[in-house]
Amino acid sequence: MNTVKAGVVGATGYAGAELCRLLLGHPQAELSAISSVGFQGQPLSAVYPAYYNICDMICESQEDVVEKSDVIFAALPHGLSQELAAQCMAAGKAFIDLGADFRLESEEVYQEWYGGAFTDPALHKQAVYGLPELFREEIRGKKLIANPGCYTTAVPLALVPALEAGLIETEGIVADCKSGVTGAGRKPTQGSHYPELNEGFTAYKVACHRHTPEMEQTLSRIAGKEMRLTFVPHLLPINRGILATCYVRMKPGATLEKLRAAYESRYAGEYFIRLLPQGQAANVKNVRGTNFCDLSLFVDARTGTFAAISAIDNMVKGAAGQAVQNMNLAFGLEETAGLKLVPMAF
Amino acid sequence: MNTVKAGVVGATGYAGAELCRLLLGHPQAELSAISSVGFQGQPLSAVYPAYYNICDMICESQEDVVEKSDVIFAALPHGLSQELAAQCMAAGKAFIDLGADFRLESEEVYQEWYGGAFTDPALHKQAVYGLPELFREEIRGKKLIANPGCYTTAVPLALVPALEAGLIETEGIVADCKSGVTGAGRKPTQGSHYPELNEGFTAYKVACHRHTPEMEQTLSRIAGKEMRLTFVPHLLPINRGILATCYVRMKPGATLEKLRAAYESRYAGEYFIRLLPQGQAANVKNVRGTNFCDLSLFVDARTGTFAAISAIDNMVKGAAGQAVQNMNLAFGLEETAGLKLVPMAF
Amino acid sequence: MNTVKAGVVGATGYAGAELCRLLLGHPQAELSAISSVGFQGQPLSAVYPAYYNICDMICESQEDVVEKSDVIFAALPHGLSQELAAQCMAAGKAFIDLGADFRLESEEVYQEWYGGAFTDPALHKQAVYGLPELFREEIRGKKLIANPGCYTTAVPLALVPALEAGLIETEGIVADCKSGVTGAGRKPTQGSHYPELNEGFTAYKVACHRHTPEMEQTLSRIAGKEMRLTFVPHLLPINRGILATCYVRMKPGATLEKLRAAYESRYAGEYFIRLLPQGQAANVKNVRGTNFCDLSLFVDARTGTFAAISAIDNMVKGAAGQAVQNMNLAFGLEETAGLKLVPMAF
Amino acid sequence: MNTVKAGVVGATGYAGAELCRLLLGHPQAELSAISSVGFQGQPLSAVYPAYYNICDMICESQEDVVEKSDVIFAALPHGLSQELAAQCMAAGKAFIDLGADFRLESEEVYQEWYGGAFTDPALHKQAVYGLPELFREEIRGKKLIANPGCYTTAVPLALVPALEAGLIETEGIVADCKSGVTGAGRKPTQGSHYPELNEGFTAYKVACHRHTPEMEQTLSRIAGKEMRLTFVPHLLPINRGILATCYVRMKPGATLEKLRAAYESRYAGEYFIRLLPQGQAANVKNVRGTNFCDLSLFVDARTGTFAAISAIDNMVKGAAGQAVQNMNLAFGLEETAGLKLVPMAF
Repeated sequence: MNTVKAGVVGATGYAGAELCRLLLGHPQAELSAISSVGFQGQPLSAVYPAYYNICDMICESQEDVVEKSDVIFAALPHGLSQELAAQCMAAGKAFIDLGADFRLESEEVYQEWYGGAFTDPALHKQAVYGLPELFREEIRGKKLIANPGCYTTAVPLALVPALEAGLIETEGIVADCKSGVTGAGRKPTQGSHYPELNEGFTAYKVACHRHTPEMEQTLSRIAGKEMRLTFVPHLLPINRGILATCYVRMKPGATLEKLRAAYESRYAGEYFIRLLPQGQAANVKNVRGTNFCDLSLFVDARTGTFAAISAIDNMVKGAAGQAVQNMNLAFGLEETAGLKLVPMAF
Repeated sequence: MNTVKAGVVGATGYAGAELCRLLLGHPQAELSAISSVGFQGQPLSAVYPAYYNICDMICESQEDVVEKSDVIFAALPHGLSQELAAQCMAAGKAFIDLGADFRLESEEVYQEWYGGAFTDPALHKQAVYGLPELFREEIRGKKLIANPGCYTTAVPLALVPALEAGLIETEGIVADCKSGVTGAGRKPTQGSHYPELNEGFTAYKVACHRHTPEMEQTLSRIAGKEMRLTFVPHLLPINRGILATCYVRMKPGATLEKLRAAYESRYAGEYFIRLLPQGQAANVKNVRGTNFCDLSLFVDARTGTFAAISAIDNMVKGAAGQAVQNMNLAFGLEETAGLKLVPMAF
Repeated sequence: MNTVKAGVVGATGYAGAELCRLLLGHPQAELSAISSVGFQGQPLSAVYPAYYNICDMICESQEDVVEKSDVIFAALPHGLSQELAAQCMAAGKAFIDLGADFRLESEEVYQEWYGGAFTDPALHKQAVYGLPELFREEIRGKKLIANPGCYTTAVPLALVPALEAGLIETEGIVADCKSGVTGAGRKPTQGSHYPELNEGFTAYKVACHRHTPEMEQTLSRIAGKEMRLTFVPHLLPINRGILATCYVRMKPGATLEKLRAAYESRYAGEYFIRLLPQGQAANVKNVRGTNFCDLSLFVDARTGTFAAISAIDNMVKGAAGQAVQNMNLAFGLEETAGLKLVPMAF
Repeated sequence: MNTVKAGVVGATGYAGAELCRLLLGHPQAELSAISSVGFQGQPLSAVYPAYYNICDMICESQEDVVEKSDVIFAALPHGLSQELAAQCMAAGKAFIDLGADFRLESEEVYQEWYGGAFTDPALHKQAVYGLPELFREEIRGKKLIANPGCYTTAVPLALVPALEAGLIETEGIVADCKSGVTGAGRKPTQGSHYPELNEGFTAYKVACHRHTPEMEQTLSRIAGKEMRLTFVPHLLPINRGILATCYVRMKPGATLEKLRAAYESRYAGEYFIRLLPQGQAANVKNVRGTNFCDLSLFVDARTGTFAAISAIDNMVKGAAGQAVQNMNLAFGLEETAGLKLVPMAF
C-alpha cells in the first residue's frame, strides 16, 4: 500500500495542530500540506514552538492542500466545510470534516441548532458519521466522513451497550459532562483568560449546547426510536479531556453484573475502549494524548440508577485521533495505525 | 454584649485554620485558644506561614481550649467529637462540631455509613443540625450544634425551594457534585499529590459517599416523606469550592418562572444566598473565601428536567463560615457578623 | 476625621477591581465612584460576579469620579494619566497613579523606555514616588503620588537594607523575578490563553522590561550613586504574586548575621515587611491578598553571593494595596488602615 | 543488531515509569522486566492506570530484572545503586544509574554532599558521566554509566559553548532554576500536597542543593580549572520541566553575535539541542515529553551580562530520555533511536 498523503486545512487551530502531531507519527501516512487563514506563509512551528525542528512546514492555501493530498482533514469553524467538501469530491479526494456541517442528518435540526442551511443536500447524503465503534462498516472505503464532536463521542460510547442490551430506560437520561479548555479553541476569550478560568469551575450552555441533537441522533439510531437527553457541559481548568458522567434509570432486572457483561461483550476487541476494572473510576488524566475511551460503570442500587462514566481526550478520540481512525478505515489501513501511542503516565 | 471567646480544637487542619481566619476578623468574637494533636506547643504560623505575625498563637491541649473558651469548635476526624462534646456540655460551654458525629439523627444510619455507635444517645438528642437557611429557629441559643458537611450544604440549598413549592418530583434526583481538593484535608495522600491530581479529573466514591444519608435526611425532613437521591462526587484540580449540579424531573405545570419565583420568595432576605441573574451560571470562583451560596436555575423544556446549580466555598459555607454563622445564632449575635467578607474577584 | 471619598478610574481592570475590594473594606474611606471606558453604565458586578450583591456600583465617566471623590486612583494604560492628574490638581483633589506616567524623574529616561514626553513638566515636579517603606516622609500629605510598579516594589525592598549598610557591591546585581499572570492585565491575549500558559513557564522581555529604569532610579537614590542591574522577568502559571530572587556579591567582611541585623534594624516597625525566620523561604502563596512583603535572606559562602528573596502580591503590595497605603499617608490616616487583612492560609 | 533487552529497577517511581514509556516505544529495545519494592507482584498499570492494556507487566525482584536484561536502568534513592551496579558488572550486564551514586568523581565531595562513602572505589573508576552532548565519545560502548541529574543537565548545556569559546568569566555565575514537581518524586509530602503547592511559588535548598557540586564538576572539566557557581532552585506548580536562567558576566569583546556563533558551532548536528531563533524565549511547555533541550541567549549590554536560558523536561532529557540516549550510545544504536517523539503542542 502506498503512503496516504494527508493534508490539514485549518492546521493552526488546536484540532488541526493535533492532527499534524498524529500524522507526523503515522507509519502509513504523511503530512502532505497544511493551510491556515491566519498564518499563511508561516511555518507551523511559528505558531507551535513545540514543533520547532520537527515540523516547520509552511502554511499554504486550502487549494494547495487539496491538490497535494489524497485525504483532506478540515478543522474549520462550522459552516465553512460544505464548499470545501464539494471541491474535494469533485477532485476525487477523500474529505474528513472535524466541524459540524455533515454530522446531522436532518437539515431542519441543523437549522434549528446551527442556523444555516444544507447548501448541497446531495452531498450530505454521501456523508457517513464517523464513530467507528458504533458505525464501523459504514465508514470503510468512504470519501466523505463527518467526524463526531467531542461530547458526542464520549456520551454515546458510555451508553450504547446498556441501551442495546435493553437494560436501561430510554427516558430521563442525564449527561453531566466536564471538558478541558482546549475544546473552546485557540482564540483567546475572556472565559479562557488564565486568571479568570484558573481556580474556577462552572457549567455553560446548560441544556442548550449544540452537541445535544447530535448525541440524540446517535442514541436514537441505536435505540430505533427517538431519544432525548439532558446535556449539561462544564468547563474544567485543565487543558485536555472530557469526563462524561451519564445517569439513567435501570430497567427492572438490570444489575451491575448484567451491565458489565453487556459492555464487555459489545466492546470486545475494541482496542480504543478500555473498560476499567470494577471500582476504578475513569480519569481524563489517563487518556491524555491517546485515542482511548476509558469506561467505568456504577450502579446505585438504592435508587435504581446506572452511572456510566467515560473519559476521552477531547483533542484525540474527541477530534484528531478519531479522524485518523476514520482515515484508516476509509483507506483500508489497520484501524489503529498511528494511534497506538504510549501516553505519559503523569 | 461581651466578646465571645471562641476556641478551635484541631486548628491545624484546613477547616480549623479557616475557622481561625474568620474568628481573627470577627468583630464580636476573639480566638481564645487553639489545639492540635500533631503540632502541640508550636505556633499556628509554623504550620501556615501565611499567618506569620498575624496569628502566632501556640497550639495547646484540648483541655486548655475548653477551659479558655465560651464556644468550642471541633474540626476532628469522625468519631472523636462525642467525648469532647460531653465535656463541653458538662462545663456549660457551647460546642459546634464540624465532624459528622452529631449530624445524623438515626443511630442505625450512622452505624451503616460510619461504622460506629452513638456513645451517648441523650447527647445526640440535644444536638441541632446547623443549616441556618433551613433550620434557623432551632439553632438560636443552642449549645450543641452539628455543622453540616460541604456537599450536604450545597445540595439541599439548591433543591429545597423547588421541593417546598411542590414543583419537582421527589424521586430520581441526581446530584452531580464537583469539589476542590481541600475537602480531602491537609494530610498528603497519593490522590492529592500534585503531579497526580494536576491536569486530571475523576469521580470518586460513586453512589457510596457518606454525605448521601445526610442529604437525604435534610430533604426528607423538608418533604415530609422519605427521599433518596443519587450522589456522585468528583474531584477538581482546584483548592476550594463545590459546584453541585442537581437534576430532577419537574412536576406537570412547573416552569422556569414559577421555579425562580419560589427561590426568590424562599430565599428573600437571606444574605448568604445569591440567586444569580437568569442565564448566569454559578462558578466556584465567585464564592471563594466567602460564606455565599450562589444559585443558578435552568430548565430543559425538551426533557422536562430542572437543573439547579449551587456553588459554595467548601471551607467556608461548607465548613468554617457556616460554623461561625451558627455561633452567631447560638450567641444571639448578628447572623452575618464576621462573615461579610469582600472576596478577591480574581 | 471624615471618611475619605475615594474614586477609581479604570475600575474594571485588575488593579482597579482590587482597589475596589480594599476600599470597600476600609474603615475610614468609602468607594465614592468608579469609571470604566469599556463598561460605562454597567455595574462592577457584571464584570466581576464575585462582587454581586456586594458592589453593584455603576461605572460612570472619569469626570463623575473626579467630581465625587477626594482622592482619585487611576489604573490606566501608560500615557493616559497626565491629563487626568492635571484635572485633579486643578480641582484640588488628590491623585494616586497606578500607571507609570509619574514614576520616572527623568524625562529622557521616560522617553527612552516608554516613548512619550512629559506633557506638563511642572506637574511631574509635584509628584512623589509612593514606596512608603523607603520614602515615607515625602509622601505624607501629598496630592500627587506615583504608585510604584510591582517588580519595582519587590526588588528594592529586597536589596535596600544591604545596600544602605554597605554590605553588598553596587555592580553585578541580578534580579530574577517571577510573576503571576494578573500582572499582564484583564485583556485576553494568546500568552494568557489558558491552554498556552498552563503547564508552561518562560522568561519574557529579558533584560529589556520597562521596570528596569524605575528599579535603578530607586536603588541609585538610596546608594547615592548611579546603579544598574540585570532584570529578567518570568511568567508563572498562577494568578497572583511576584517572587524576586536578587543576587549580589557581598563586600569583604559581610556575613549572614550582619545582613540579617541590617534588615531587622532597617525594617523594625514596618508592619508590611515580614522578615522570615532564617531558613524559611518566601512563598508568593503566603502573601496572597495581603499588603505584605515577605523577605528571606541567604548567603552562598562558597561564592560570596548574597541572595535576597522577596514575595509580594503583585495586585496588592505591587499595586492596589500600596496605593491605599499611600492614600492613608496622604490623608493622615493610620498607615495600615484597611490593610490589616487576614489572608486565606491555603 | 538484536533487540536490546532493557530492564528497569524502580519502575514505579516517576523516572522509572518514564523509562518504561520510552522503552515501550523504542524500535530496537524491548522492556524485558521491571521491579519495584513497593509494588512487587502487581502490574505497572495498577500504579499508573494510563498504562492499562498497554503495559500490564508485573513488577518482579531486582534479581529477576538483572537476569532478564542486557542493560539495567536503576531509578533508586541515592546510595542504593552501588551494590546493584557491582552485581550487574559481575553478570556482564550494562548498568545505567539514574541516581547520584556514580556521578561525582571525588569521594570526598560525595561524602560532603551525600554523606556516604564509595563502597567500591574500583567500580567508580569504570563509571562514565552520561551527558552525551559533552562527553559522547567516552560513553560509547561503556557498561557503567552515571546518568546526570536534571538541573545538572540543564545548566551545563546552557553555559558550555560560551565557556569553551572563552566569551564569559568563570566566576560569579548564577544559575536560577525552576523545576516542575515531578522532580521531587512520586511519594506524597506536605510540600507536594496539591492545596499547598497550587498557586504558590518558592525557592528551596537555596545555595545548598546537592546538584551544585555535580554542575561544578562538569563546568570545571570543560574549563580546565576549578569553577564554582551559585545555584538556587525553585519549585513550579506544574508537573514537568526545568527552566534554567543562567547569568554570567561577559569577557571584554564578547557580543551576542559571537555568543550565538559559538553555540551554533558547538551544537551543530546535535538533534536534541534546539537553539531558538533570537528573541524567542525557551519555555518548558515546548519540550514536555521530549528529549530536547531548548536554548535562548540574551545579552544585557547595559550591565555586560550574558543570560543563557535552557528548558528541558526533567523526566526526559533530565532523566529517562537521556538514559535511553546513553543506552543507545553504549549499545551502538542510532543515538536518537526511540527518542524522536512528536510532542503535544499544547
